[in-house]
Amino acid sequence: MVSEKMYELGTKKSTIRTIFEFGRKRAAEVGEENIFDFSLGNPNVPTPNFVKDAAIEILQNYEPSAVHGYTVAPGNPEVRETLAKSINDRFGTNFAGKNLFVTAGAAAAITICFKALTEVDDEFITFAPYFPEYKVFVESVGAKLKVVPAQTSDWQINFDEFVKILSPKTKAVIINSPNNPSGAVYSEETIKKLSEILTEKSKEFGREIFIISDEPYREIAYGIEVPYVPKFYKNTLVCYSYSKSFSLPGERIGYIIVPDEVEDFGKIFGAIAGAARVLTHVNAPSLWQLVVAKCAGKPSDISIYEKNAKLLYEGLIEAGFECVKPQGAFYLFPKALESDDYAFCERAKKYDLLLVPGADFGAAGYFRAAYCIKTETIERSLPLFKKLAAEYRKSQ
Amino acid sequence: MVSEKMYELGTKKSTIRTIFEFGRKRAAEVGEENIFDFSLGNPNVPTPNFVKDAAIEILQNYEPSAVHGYTVAPGNPEVRETLAKSINDRFGTNFAGKNLFVTAGAAAAITICFKALTEVDDEFITFAPYFPEYKVFVESVGAKLKVVPAQTSDWQINFDEFVKILSPKTKAVIINSPNNPSGAVYSEETIKKLSEILTEKSKEFGREIFIISDEPYREIAYGIEVPYVPKFYKNTLVCYSYSKSFSLPGERIGYIIVPDEVEDFGKIFGAIAGAARVLTHVNAPSLWQLVVAKCAGKPSDISIYEKNAKLLYEGLIEAGFECVKPQGAFYLFPKALESDDYAFCERAKKYDLLLVPGADFGAAGYFRAAYCIKTETIERSLPLFKKLAAEYRKSQ
Repeated sequence: MVSEKMYELGTKKSTIRTIFEFGRKRAAEVGEENIFDFSLGNPNVPTPNFVKDAAIEILQNYEPSAVHGYTVAPGNPEVRETLAKSINDRFGTNFAGKNLFVTAGAAAAITICFKALTEVDDEFITFAPYFPEYKVFVESVGAKLKVVPAQTSDWQINFDEFVKILSPKTKAVIINSPNNPSGAVYSEETIKKLSEILTEKSKEFGREIFIISDEPYREIAYGIEVPYVPKFYKNTLVCYSYSKSFSLPGERIGYIIVPDEVEDFGKIFGAIAGAARVLTHVNAPSLWQLVVAKCAGKPSDISIYEKNAKLLYEGLIEAGFECVKPQGAFYLFPKALESDDYAFCERAKKYDLLLVPGADFGAAGYFRAAYCIKTETIERSLPLFKKLAAEYRKSQ
Repeated sequence: MVSEKMYELGTKKSTIRTIFEFGRKRAAEVGEENIFDFSLGNPNVPTPNFVKDAAIEILQNYEPSAVHGYTVAPGNPEVRETLAKSINDRFGTNFAGKNLFVTAGAAAAITICFKALTEVDDEFITFAPYFPEYKVFVESVGAKLKVVPAQTSDWQINFDEFVKILSPKTKAVIINSPNNPSGAVYSEETIKKLSEILTEKSKEFGREIFIISDEPYREIAYGIEVPYVPKFYKNTLVCYSYSKSFSLPGERIGYIIVPDEVEDFGKIFGAIAGAARVLTHVNAPSLWQLVVAKCAGKPSDISIYEKNAKLLYEGLIEAGFECVKPQGAFYLFPKALESDDYAFCERAKKYDLLLVPGADFGAAGYFRAAYCIKTETIERSLPLFKKLAAEYRKSQ
């Protein structure tokens, strides 16, 4: 009577959701302060005051129909010009408003790109560890997602495995840096090598391979530059969201950049408009288009994330965990203390430490700890991580 | 290199868009005041002040993460409870929060329903004249749209033709009352007869046939009751939007109602969640969820639409047009003065009267005039409609 596939997608709980709900139940039993919930990637830095002020000013002073009316599908032309200028100022690029398609956040942005690009039999490639919704979204447009095994030493790209998976069916490569869940930032060297391989393979296969750069965590990087991908590879579509940088995940606002340099700009931009239409993103929420334009270029406050990253990383290392040093986003991705990461996360639950198994992100044997939580909660969790590690040492 | 289908959907201009753009060009040549643009269905009543006040109050006084954070996919639970209560107060229904799925407007709401319900080979039925995006959205989920020819005498349902089109493949019937483009409101008699036929045919075919009631114009009705469909037919999904009632089309906020009475509530609600997920509607914009809950039950100002409807209707009748008396929405759908409605609309352009051919809505020989424009523009247009009619009389 209904689509079984949609029913399954709408009701099968993700591991993260199951852990989160377990946490809510436990919190009711033992008290909120005794639960150490590292499961959810919700920004905990408050929305900056300049965002609030901009929204109120617009509501008070602008003509209502200019705020709340439909915009054209790619977004308010002035907003797009303003955002393009701000991006150019930051990255030395040369975009104009016509290069931007404003979207309802990054999930919409990447899926619009998938749908716009997908022809029969197409494949997309991403790199473990990866955001599991990629698989849902890519499959929903009728394409296949291929996953390159992780390079666990530094969470950069495992190029040896990558070239084995690249094929004439590859339409695009999805990258996510700063990365959820690894916390790694792809180095300039990584991006350059990726670009070289894709340039060569596009030639070899006689068709362009795109990079879809999913970068909602761009601003959350700790003293390290996040290379701007279109400067290295022409067939790059950038997908951005203000969910993390301005702590606005519920408002659904972001954009796609289609550089002039991509092969057949008009064709791609047109297909993006068609994909947005059938995904029923009539336009990105109009007030928020104006707000982010008004706040363009304003800084994100990442000091809490940086502090938490250091605290949790050093605490885990001291407790005996192995972990690549975090470079950005708000996740650590340490090695589990046994090869079965599900069993490990179950055992951690005894201490009310709520962690997500790495297998969920395509990297078994690891776990994700989201540290976008109160610093004080992290402080109080460290003795528990120590106890957990001691328990493992004892049993060895 | 891209999906040709998406490219076509993103670039092929609709007739309405083409006419609107012609109007913009003409306005630059002869002046805004000399263009009589009846092409676009954009609400022209300003967003009510209580909406602005609610938004500002929320931004000023609520904790930011409670305003801008992710909500669960079906929407903020308190918002859903509040909206359910308000609906119950108005229509004597018995909904709870769990019966609502908050969406990014009505386009998302209906398409989520299409996607949730569609199995292999399914068909949806709608009634001419109809909103042309129905075809795009239904086809985008892999189903077929069948159109019942119009009942031109009163724009109610042509039941003789309807029963011929109903088949064991029919998954749902899409109705839109008050109607775009006809301005008709389906009477209680119409809804009752529709319900009887669907009950009978569901039994005959051994599978439930749903009504998807797309009702963004519910509040825009002139002294006439708009029957609340779930009270007449149990397998009804109501799709609503605040775009028109609160003049918020750019903000994308609305909802789906899934009554307890529908066949297999859990299955349908689950499939709706899955469909929203793959259409990348992570959650409806969170601030606007809170705003519409705060404004629940507050009245829409339809006085301008009512005034314009009367003025334009009487003016057209006086000029010699045939037209069913408008009951709601903000459209008139008169008979064109020649059988070729495209030729008629072309001829109207000579007078800078911008009208949309009825064939675009599945009813050739008619035209749509959207009167959500300045009253004064309508007043000044009436002599031109008279001249146009006189021209036709002369040539006969």
